[in-house]
Amino acid sequence: MARRPEVLLFDVFGTVVDWRGSLIRELRRAGRRHGVRCDWGAFADAWRSGYRPAMDRVRRGDSSWRSIDELHLEILKPLLERAGLRLRPAEVRDLNAAWHRLSPWPDSATGLARLKRHFVIGTLSNGNMSLLIDLARAGRLPWDVILSAELFRHYKPDPEVYAGAAALLGLPARAVMLVAAHKDDLAAARRCGLRTAFVRRPLEHGRASEADIGADRRADFNADDFVDLARQLMY
Amino acid sequence: MARRPEVLLFDVFGTVVDWRGSLIRELRRAGRRHGVRCDWGAFADAWRSGYRPAMDRVRRGDSSWRSIDELHLEILKPLLERAGLRLRPAEVRDLNAAWHRLSPWPDSATGLARLKRHFVIGTLSNGNMSLLIDLARAGRLPWDVILSAELFRHYKPDPEVYAGAAALLGLPARAVMLVAAHKDDLAAARRCGLRTAFVRRPLEHGRASEADIGADRRADFNADDFVDLARQLMY
Repeated sequence: MARRPEVLLFDVFGTVVDWRGSLIRELRRAGRRHGVRCDWGAFADAWRSGYRPAMDRVRRGDSSWRSIDELHLEILKPLLERAGLRLRPAEVRDLNAAWHRLSPWPDSATGLARLKRHFVIGTLSNGNMSLLIDLARAGRLPWDVILSAELFRHYKPDPEVYAGAAALLGLPARAVMLVAAHKDDLAAARRCGLRTAFVRRPLEHGRASEADIGADRRADFNADDFVDLARQLMY
Repeated sequence: MARRPEVLLFDVFGTVVDWRGSLIRELRRAGRRHGVRCDWGAFADAWRSGYRPAMDRVRRGDSSWRSIDELHLEILKPLLERAGLRLRPAEVRDLNAAWHRLSPWPDSATGLARLKRHFVIGTLSNGNMSLLIDLARAGRLPWDVILSAELFRHYKPDPEVYAGAAALLGLPARAVMLVAAHKDDLAAARRCGLRTAFVRRPLEHGRASEADIGADRRADFNADDFVDLARQLMY
C-alpha cells in the first residue's frame, strides 16, 4: 500500500473559501442599497447555521433531496424578513448566489497549485456541482475534479459520500485524504478509511469566535494553511 | 432563453484525444519489447470496436455496471492471445492503462483554454472518472468539470447521460452544448434538447478510413477543430 495518498479531496466552505467574510460584504452592500442596517455578521452566521438542520432533514429522509442552493434560499427568506430587508425576487436570487462567489482564503489558490503538482486534487463538498464550478472559476482554484454530495444524494457526514468518492476515483479509501477545517468531517472520513489532514482556519467564524482550532490528534497531518500542507506532504 | 450555451460538454475519445494513434504507439512498443510483430492499427481498431457491444450489454442490462477500464481489459485479453503477445499480469494492466495516457489532438489544449474564457467546459464521456482525470492531467486539458457516464450508471447514447448532465449543472438542456466528432452522439444529445457542435476529426480512424466527416446539417455548429469552434462561438 502506498505510503502517501494519491488524491487530496477538500472540504470547501470554511476550508477553501471564506464564506463568512464574503457573505458579510454582499449583505452589507444589499443593506446599503436599501437603507437597512443590521448586524450582518450575525445574519451570515444565522444563514450558515440554518443549513445544518435543513440538511439533517434531508439526511434523515424527512425531506426529498434538495441542493444546497435550495436550502440556502429557504433559510434566507425568513432572515430577510426579520431584518426588514425587502428585496425583489430577482434580488433575492442574486443574493442567494453570493454562495457561488465566495472568496478563497489568501493561500488557497497558491497552495492548491503546489499540491496539484504531486497529487490529484478535488473537492468533496456539500455544495452542489454548479456552485462548486462557479467558485472554482471565480477563485482560479485548479481542481482536477469536482465531487459533490449531490453525486451521491447524501450529505456529509454520511459515509456514502466519503466511500462513494473513493469508489468513483477507483481507489481504496487509504489512497484518498480529506483536507478540512472541521474535525467532525475528518472523523467521519476516518471512519470510512480515508486519511485526514486538519487545516486551521481561525477566521472562519470571525475574529471573536471560539472555534476549536487546536490540533486534531487523530489526523495524519495538521497544517496552518495549504502552503504549509504542501510543504509537509512534499518532504 | 439565452441565445448562446453556457456550458460546453465534450465527448472525449476521438473528439479530444487521438485514441488510435496513441494506442498504436504503446502497442508497437510492447510488441518490440517481446519481439512480436502485428498490424497494430488493426489491433487498436479491434480493441476500440469491441467496446460498443460490451457497453451495449451493460446498456441492455444483460451485465451489471462495469467501467470502461474493466470493459477494455476484457476485450484486450483475447486480442493479446490472438496476436501471440504474452504479457505478465502487471504488463497487461499497464497496457490497459494506455487509455489513461491518450494524447490530445494538437488543437485540443489551446482550443479548450480559449473556450474556457467564455464558457464552462467539461467532459461528457463514457470513460470512467479516473481515466478522464488522468487524461486531463497528462494532456493539460483545463476542464472546469469532469462528467462521466459512470455518474449516471448509463452509457451514451442513453438519454439519462445527457439529461443527467444538464440536471447536475442546474441548467435547462438548451443551455448545454455537446461537442463531438460523432453524429450518433450528437443526435442523442439533440433528442434530449441539448445544442450540438460537430467537430471533424478526419484522422480518428487513421489516414485510410472512410469515416463520415461531412457537415452535420442538424448541428448548431460545424467546426474544423476547437480553435475554429472558439472563433465561431465568440463572434
